[in-house]
Amino acid sequence: MVRPADSKLRAAVLAATGMVGQRYVSMLSNHPFFLVTVVTGQSSVGRKYGQATASTNLPISEETKRLTVKATSPDSLDNVDVVFSPLPTEIAKTQEPQLARAGLRVITDASPHRMDSLVPLIVPEVNPDHLEILERQRRARKWKGLLVATPNCTAAGLALVLKPIHDALGLKRVVVSTLQAVSGAGYPGVPSLDIIDNVIPYVKEEEEKIETEPLKMLGEVGNGRIAPAKFEIGAMVHRVATTDGHLESLYLETEDRFEPEKVARILSKFRGEPQKLKLPTAPKEPIIVTRLEGRPQPKLDRYAGTVPGMSVVVGRIRKGFDSKSGRLTLLSHNTIRGAAGSTILTAELMYKKGLLS
Amino acid sequence: MVRPADSKLRAAVLAATGMVGQRYVSMLSNHPFFLVTVVTGQSSVGRKYGQATASTNLPISEETKRLTVKATSPDSLDNVDVVFSPLPTEIAKTQEPQLARAGLRVITDASPHRMDSLVPLIVPEVNPDHLEILERQRRARKWKGLLVATPNCTAAGLALVLKPIHDALGLKRVVVSTLQAVSGAGYPGVPSLDIIDNVIPYVKEEEEKIETEPLKMLGEVGNGRIAPAKFEIGAMVHRVATTDGHLESLYLETEDRFEPEKVARILSKFRGEPQKLKLPTAPKEPIIVTRLEGRPQPKLDRYAGTVPGMSVVVGRIRKGFDSKSGRLTLLSHNTIRGAAGSTILTAELMYKKGLLS
Amino acid sequence: MVRPADSKLRAAVLAATGMVGQRYVSMLSNHPFFLVTVVTGQSSVGRKYGQATASTNLPISEETKRLTVKATSPDSLDNVDVVFSPLPTEIAKTQEPQLARAGLRVITDASPHRMDSLVPLIVPEVNPDHLEILERQRRARKWKGLLVATPNCTAAGLALVLKPIHDALGLKRVVVSTLQAVSGAGYPGVPSLDIIDNVIPYVKEEEEKIETEPLKMLGEVGNGRIAPAKFEIGAMVHRVATTDGHLESLYLETEDRFEPEKVARILSKFRGEPQKLKLPTAPKEPIIVTRLEGRPQPKLDRYAGTVPGMSVVVGRIRKGFDSKSGRLTLLSHNTIRGAAGSTILTAELMYKKGLLS
Amino acid sequence: MVRPADSKLRAAVLAATGMVGQRYVSMLSNHPFFLVTVVTGQSSVGRKYGQATASTNLPISEETKRLTVKATSPDSLDNVDVVFSPLPTEIAKTQEPQLARAGLRVITDASPHRMDSLVPLIVPEVNPDHLEILERQRRARKWKGLLVATPNCTAAGLALVLKPIHDALGLKRVVVSTLQAVSGAGYPGVPSLDIIDNVIPYVKEEEEKIETEPLKMLGEVGNGRIAPAKFEIGAMVHRVATTDGHLESLYLETEDRFEPEKVARILSKFRGEPQKLKLPTAPKEPIIVTRLEGRPQPKLDRYAGTVPGMSVVVGRIRKGFDSKSGRLTLLSHNTIRGAAGSTILTAELMYKKGLLS
Repeated sequence: MVRPADSKLRAAVLAATGMVGQRYVSMLSNHPFFLVTVVTGQSSVGRKYGQATASTNLPISEETKRLTVKATSPDSLDNVDVVFSPLPTEIAKTQEPQLARAGLRVITDASPHRMDSLVPLIVPEVNPDHLEILERQRRARKWKGLLVATPNCTAAGLALVLKPIHDALGLKRVVVSTLQAVSGAGYPGVPSLDIIDNVIPYVKEEEEKIETEPLKMLGEVGNGRIAPAKFEIGAMVHRVATTDGHLESLYLETEDRFEPEKVARILSKFRGEPQKLKLPTAPKEPIIVTRLEGRPQPKLDRYAGTVPGMSVVVGRIRKGFDSKSGRLTLLSHNTIRGAAGSTILTAELMYKKGLLS
Repeated sequence: MVRPADSKLRAAVLAATGMVGQRYVSMLSNHPFFLVTVVTGQSSVGRKYGQATASTNLPISEETKRLTVKATSPDSLDNVDVVFSPLPTEIAKTQEPQLARAGLRVITDASPHRMDSLVPLIVPEVNPDHLEILERQRRARKWKGLLVATPNCTAAGLALVLKPIHDALGLKRVVVSTLQAVSGAGYPGVPSLDIIDNVIPYVKEEEEKIETEPLKMLGEVGNGRIAPAKFEIGAMVHRVATTDGHLESLYLETEDRFEPEKVARILSKFRGEPQKLKLPTAPKEPIIVTRLEGRPQPKLDRYAGTVPGMSVVVGRIRKGFDSKSGRLTLLSHNTIRGAAGSTILTAELMYKKGLLS
Repeated sequence: MVRPADSKLRAAVLAATGMVGQRYVSMLSNHPFFLVTVVTGQSSVGRKYGQATASTNLPISEETKRLTVKATSPDSLDNVDVVFSPLPTEIAKTQEPQLARAGLRVITDASPHRMDSLVPLIVPEVNPDHLEILERQRRARKWKGLLVATPNCTAAGLALVLKPIHDALGLKRVVVSTLQAVSGAGYPGVPSLDIIDNVIPYVKEEEEKIETEPLKMLGEVGNGRIAPAKFEIGAMVHRVATTDGHLESLYLETEDRFEPEKVARILSKFRGEPQKLKLPTAPKEPIIVTRLEGRPQPKLDRYAGTVPGMSVVVGRIRKGFDSKSGRLTLLSHNTIRGAAGSTILTAELMYKKGLLS
Repeated sequence: MVRPADSKLRAAVLAATGMVGQRYVSMLSNHPFFLVTVVTGQSSVGRKYGQATASTNLPISEETKRLTVKATSPDSLDNVDVVFSPLPTEIAKTQEPQLARAGLRVITDASPHRMDSLVPLIVPEVNPDHLEILERQRRARKWKGLLVATPNCTAAGLALVLKPIHDALGLKRVVVSTLQAVSGAGYPGVPSLDIIDNVIPYVKEEEEKIETEPLKMLGEVGNGRIAPAKFEIGAMVHRVATTDGHLESLYLETEDRFEPEKVARILSKFRGEPQKLKLPTAPKEPIIVTRLEGRPQPKLDRYAGTVPGMSVVVGRIRKGFDSKSGRLTLLSHNTIRGAAGSTILTAELMYKKGLLS
């Protein structure tokens, strides 16, 4: 088993020709810890990766472009240290456990295993300690590899913003109304006839995910078990005609007084383990607070911060019905902070903790 | 003072060359009660109305096209029975009371006088009884005419949907998140650079209106005074890239149990005085409940019902956090039910009640 | 074989649950000549038509909603007088000749047979005389039924505008640049990610159709043969973010002098056989000339005229490089004048000529 | 008169708070030749530049943000070496000659003086030699400073692509159909109500500019006079719902044979003086030829190349009516290659030629 010359870990990206898959490959180009050595796909097996993705314009290293797209199977992934999986739901359901059983370390942003009590669901700034249940996972499932999950694209930004508020004020109830970009539905995804001059107040199975995943992530871990956080989330989702960037407006009820200025301070000062470890994909500020009128906005703010697409931008922090409630709006890049970026950041964290070798 | 041949009341439309003004004129074409005899404007004074509005495509009667645009002043409105006013805020503030003092009966959808305790704020299906404060208005203000207001474009649809729920279940709290069409900002209004591939989580002074106006409308009237309804509304507004139709997603807390099927029945059975009086602009169903997935949608539902743009469409009625809370989404045409249509319906109601002659 | 009570012809709409299929069914609701007695589909076979199309909002008669969707085959079409076919290309290729052989009278807007020298390609105002080749079609193909085609959605409006100009001035060369609506690609069609904040300067196989079909339609017929018109068309196509209405800007070189005012007169005075016969779907003016600045525009003009979607609107008629060249812009509704509407108008013409019974 | 420490020339940006003005300032941040020392504006005079432009997100150096916005007048521009002017048309008309007379070296992308026979109209790759007429300008106008112009945003990309084709094949006629981004109309510019689900086949005075400016730029200079190129251009312009990037589809007639492969080679090999001089804002390839299907596209290609927004991307090079005609589509970033970028590149060229000191 040969290591890459510079001792980087060998990484595979599954479904690498898809929209999120390409985002992974692009973000892993010239990555200090990982080298993409395998890309898999379904319809492009046997083609060069560069050809299979020629029509898009994300920057991809020449080395990766020359890789041949392989089928997604344990055989293709033989010598790989970490597997990034944005597989479609149905395929992920059966295939990811197979890969973990076969010894592969899989980090997925597919949905089927997120709420599995033996699978850590990670936003690295929020709950890095949840990785400790991997030990129980290994024992209980008898997997040689492991499976770690990244949350739903809307839940990722939401959990990140709720974390410091919950820690400081104690959350009781959260009503979240989302305005989600079409890239959240993948490609081809939302037909243009459905969204030009229109809004769709529905995304299949999305509200359930938003209402449960953050509670798992903000839960406490102990003895290899996660006790979900005790507050409630109610979601009202909408698809709108933006390309990238999910906007979420929150109504919050808290145990302690919700003072907008104080909340702004708490959010903008928040740092997590990725910041402390100075992980390559960690933005300096995971949460950027803007005081500009009418912000955040997808077009203007989705790439804000030191690592484009990884910072969540929060604005319009203001009072709610009473002294213990408030409102705010957040913007989170759905295919970066909400998918590829979060997963890579999790991999970086696991690398530093020695969980990938 | 000469009546039109067929005894219709003579109507003036102020700011008639603007976007909402044209909507008024179009809806009043061939109206059974009213005949537009005066149109006023600012930049087009002296031109034929048909020429001043040539570039738009709302249907307008040939008779009205031949009217000459006049300046907005009591002189221009000499023989007029009813004045429809979509004047800009600053002008409405001073000019509407002047017109009322001069003896004119003014129905306005401008904002400045909506929360005046002596001005009835009417959605005809919601609070036709509030017109009784006109008597106190006349005495207190010593106006020969009168001033009646129509609510904010977002508040109109909201109040209409809250009314039957409040009557049946008792509202405690409402969190409303809006996705508002660009026509709500008038013309030229929202620059295209601001809204293509974007969402703006802010509309100036909109949240205040949404949080107060429905409480006045759902309040009880007695002794010429309105006691506002006692529940709370919290708004989170957004501008999106739709042309017409404001979508509003509501989280509701109620005194009594919120059972989705029951709420659907209550809403779809709701009828108001305009329906009983069979007023010309009254839709058969003021609220249409849809059970189609992902509906209502602006493009598909904004003209639903028997009077295009006058019915509010409600969908996704579902549970909230507990048995006494729920969620739903409504769609209301902002320049018809939210402006011209509501005002004309109010005028029709006042005509039937003998308040315009 | 039982006729409908009121002696209407029995009509079938194939692929009736698709976007264009629904447009057919809607336009045939309450049609004076035709009664839809059969609707076919692929994925909805066995369901009620009203249920299979519940999510759209074109008006459809209650009677038709109760029809059960059948499979597309000669058996399903047993007692039908005329078949409207918006079948997908590959299926149309083999199935339409089978239906014609089986005795059915098929009018199609699918592409495969349009350039067949034995199939008349009809825009009723342009070349009603081409129907005479049906006799040769019957003899040569030995079909008991018949097959007539409607042109490509872009070619339909183009041929209609070129016809009177060619007759009056003689065309030499036409360069046409199109801005085509997403509905031209059917549903789901163009992914929203491809068209928000974007333009695609390409539509598969479209330029070939635009460059050949109008020449066939403007050709002369004699002895059952069509001699194509002798001028040249060069197309540059673009897909843009509009829902309905193809805009086409033309640069024209003519044998005789191109005088804009004269061309405007020729176009606005143009009437075809459908107008003379007062066919139900014939607009009073097949071509509407607008002199408003910056017009025609899809949003404002696509439903202009007496039969919504059937008139082509022409504007910006102006000089070209020299006295024998000119420019103009036309707008044509692609799913009505460019598909369902033209085909129904052809059927009406054939009905009047006794070709459907 | 004090030079900046590192001997950079001092630059002023007029109308610096406008959309194009901000593009200038951003592109001049950390520029090796120029240091912005003065920014002027109209409504923001006296405010800090950083505050006046806080709501946008172009990167601007901290140093520039601290500049105070001044009024546009010779007094404000006292010690400045070069003035970049994106002034509004009417103001540019009178003010730019005043500044030149007062000794300032003005490079403008405003339109009024572009066709002045004494003002060089420059795209640096196309006609750097035209700068020689500056000498005649100085003598004839008796200006102590000078005035150089940059072409219309659509004409810039067009001239760049026509140049190598004209040199190689000789142009006879060009029909150009444009699909222009809304940023071309400035801010607030195009109202969103006019462009959502719409296309406008008109931009005021645009066609005239496109038809004349490239002929001046491709003309020959001698004895301080420019003889315009002898071919003809006919334009058909359209505004579409894209934010940035003008797409232009061309039909070309040439003296010599138009062979698509050869034209592709000629275009992709084209280099101009900016490339030879390795000017900071010169892209390695001024023209990038793409062979991908359906390209170029605004969203995917507007920032292609080594200097984002400065390369024009050409695709779909194909045959025309005969061997001496052809078609192609080009994409040019309208506020960079079509405005700020071209002007800065011109300034860099003039700096190298010693015309700015």
